[in-house]
Amino acid sequence: MDLTIDISRLWGELETLAAYSDAPAPAVTRVLYTEVDRGARSYLKELFAQAGLAVREDALGNTFARWQGTEADLTPVASGSHIDAIPHSGRFDGTVGVLGALEAFRALTAADFAPRRSIDLILFTAEEPTRFGLGCLGSKALAGVLSPSALRALRDDEGKSPDQARREAGFGGQLEEVALPDGHYHAFVELHIEQGPLLERDGVAIGVVEAIAAPATLRLTLRGEGGHAGAVLMPQRKDALTAGAEITLAVEAAAKGSGSTDSVATVGILDVHPRAVNSIPSEVVLTADVRDIDLERRDRMVAQIREAATRVVSARGIELGLEVINADDPARCAPEVIAAVRDAATAAGVSSTPLISRAYHDASFMARICPTGMIFIPCRGGVSHRPDEYVSPAALEAGVRVLARTLARLAG
Amino acid sequence: MDLTIDISRLWGELETLAAYSDAPAPAVTRVLYTEVDRGARSYLKELFAQAGLAVREDALGNTFARWQGTEADLTPVASGSHIDAIPHSGRFDGTVGVLGALEAFRALTAADFAPRRSIDLILFTAEEPTRFGLGCLGSKALAGVLSPSALRALRDDEGKSPDQARREAGFGGQLEEVALPDGHYHAFVELHIEQGPLLERDGVAIGVVEAIAAPATLRLTLRGEGGHAGAVLMPQRKDALTAGAEITLAVEAAAKGSGSTDSVATVGILDVHPRAVNSIPSEVVLTADVRDIDLERRDRMVAQIREAATRVVSARGIELGLEVINADDPARCAPEVIAAVRDAATAAGVSSTPLISRAYHDASFMARICPTGMIFIPCRGGVSHRPDEYVSPAALEAGVRVLARTLARLAG
Repeated sequence: MDLTIDISRLWGELETLAAYSDAPAPAVTRVLYTEVDRGARSYLKELFAQAGLAVREDALGNTFARWQGTEADLTPVASGSHIDAIPHSGRFDGTVGVLGALEAFRALTAADFAPRRSIDLILFTAEEPTRFGLGCLGSKALAGVLSPSALRALRDDEGKSPDQARREAGFGGQLEEVALPDGHYHAFVELHIEQGPLLERDGVAIGVVEAIAAPATLRLTLRGEGGHAGAVLMPQRKDALTAGAEITLAVEAAAKGSGSTDSVATVGILDVHPRAVNSIPSEVVLTADVRDIDLERRDRMVAQIREAATRVVSARGIELGLEVINADDPARCAPEVIAAVRDAATAAGVSSTPLISRAYHDASFMARICPTGMIFIPCRGGVSHRPDEYVSPAALEAGVRVLARTLARLAG
Repeated sequence: MDLTIDISRLWGELETLAAYSDAPAPAVTRVLYTEVDRGARSYLKELFAQAGLAVREDALGNTFARWQGTEADLTPVASGSHIDAIPHSGRFDGTVGVLGALEAFRALTAADFAPRRSIDLILFTAEEPTRFGLGCLGSKALAGVLSPSALRALRDDEGKSPDQARREAGFGGQLEEVALPDGHYHAFVELHIEQGPLLERDGVAIGVVEAIAAPATLRLTLRGEGGHAGAVLMPQRKDALTAGAEITLAVEAAAKGSGSTDSVATVGILDVHPRAVNSIPSEVVLTADVRDIDLERRDRMVAQIREAATRVVSARGIELGLEVINADDPARCAPEVIAAVRDAATAAGVSSTPLISRAYHDASFMARICPTGMIFIPCRGGVSHRPDEYVSPAALEAGVRVLARTLARLAG
């Protein structure tokens, strides 16, 4: 099959999409159901329509753009990713899996390929945890991992539930109708940037993902005692922030001391209340994101962080609230999809290597309901979630080419 | 002199004032030039007018309500405090020095006292550092410690300068006309809650303040490297928050290890960027508020914090910006005002004791331009800057009575 990827068209579409942002370029901020998120969705739906795809949206805003197959009774294949972006991040995370899949469809169509199975291009709602504190909202709901009642219990910083927010954003229908039955898809494959340094370092074009590591996410609430920074003497203090500082260092120490370089742990949010120069912090809320490709080692780190937090608050007279936001199992990719991606790379004449994904993706949850795989492409310096996140046009072209060939095999 | 303090009227006025707040009761949030600040100012100006005082406002919104003395060529006396309140604080800090002085004026008038010197009731603009990061904005400007050009260089979180903000709040005139000449006032005395536990513990009604400790305030900006919390391995990280956590603990250690219980040091603000569960913090801004009644010991703590911060950032590959926001000298109260307060307590039949103020007040800067003193009253548990800040009506009554007698002596 002779495929022509129109990389300048795809590049232009990525640029247009990046402009739907609440942060000045090159930074991108695109939070679920905000005006820029809705604008970006409209832009994509226009592109889908131009490509002749039939669009369906579910109650959460998960969007399915279908390329009709020649044999309507076969279960369809799917590909896709997300377009939401955490504050001040970059333009390639997620978006290359959406616009890249669209370009793959167009290249296959131009090469006169007609799939036997239909192929859905899925735009997943909120892979990032920005708004409701929980990542992969859309794919978790699709996979039935996140129930309608659990969804209804979530709140954003303003106290709004996803149910209220999605209605205000114009997504009607029932949350009960979001989950897809097991076997709904024949296979799912997601194109994504590596968000790590390995492919670039080794000069390899394609990472064939074999497993996706799962984060455990904790939210710790520390309640101490406020007071005037000039008047309350040191021995009388119950400072929630000094306790939070010790716990932050304990989170780092848990990963550094795990015995494996695969262990990572991060405090990404630490909010101080009342947040005044001359006030002792009375309350601190912090999150810990703990990951490992080995589930046991990850859970050992979580246990260590719990113990350290308990020790710190008891020594400082602080009250601790500890909530496990998620603690998902790692996902294994399906051998048949792994083989399809590897063979597609070979056929396309580009190098590939097996990889473990340290970041977490919508594919983690699609793997619960169908055979799933991922295609990684290198990003500069392994940098992601930053304004300087960058993928070269050549790397992107290789990724789309391999995705197109993979889809052709899975749907052919 | 037989004085009647109408404590229920004063209490009601404090309650009315507390309702001008951006936080739900009992918490008070009243930030400079916001709608609630402007509303509270209007309410007070109404009360001043009802009491027959002539009101003048300067370009920053410092407000002078004058009780005309019988001898117009004598330099006037002044009393007053502030009404701004840091986020989620209480209703007595500052406000008792404004409404208490008004009640003192009314009690003296009712007792047929007519002062020889005029007495100005001053409502100082922004004693709290909430909006522009710098405390005692109004009194510093009055005392000529903060120049118009330094004022113009300040910015709030939205990038607005005090000059722009005060114009938008309706305060015209020239910043150059705010500073008062040395000798403008004969004396200044401020009634304030102790914001510490000593008076309550010792069952003493009045603290006769002899000196006011000065804070040194530092702002530290830590610039590391962001990235995806799942993908960047621990040895490659330049996490600005773990560096900030170490520095926070170093600030605490500097005070705890100073050798004196008079030393306090607090990190009250710590902001994390980009603030996402799954992102390594790329930037942290934190403040350190360092106080001691001994200036040398305070400056030793500041030096120690600088050294610790330098050590931490160099070990972690983080870039450090360190700014000294203020490092004022402690202020000594004037012997004649100290004597006036002590004698007033004796004459009023209430107990008193000499005290050092650990918190910082507008009086610190008035002391630069005139003989100055402070009257402290106990607050429950020494608690301040919290919604549960509380002063008993009896404690307040004693404070107003002593203030009235002090003013009568200084202006009589």
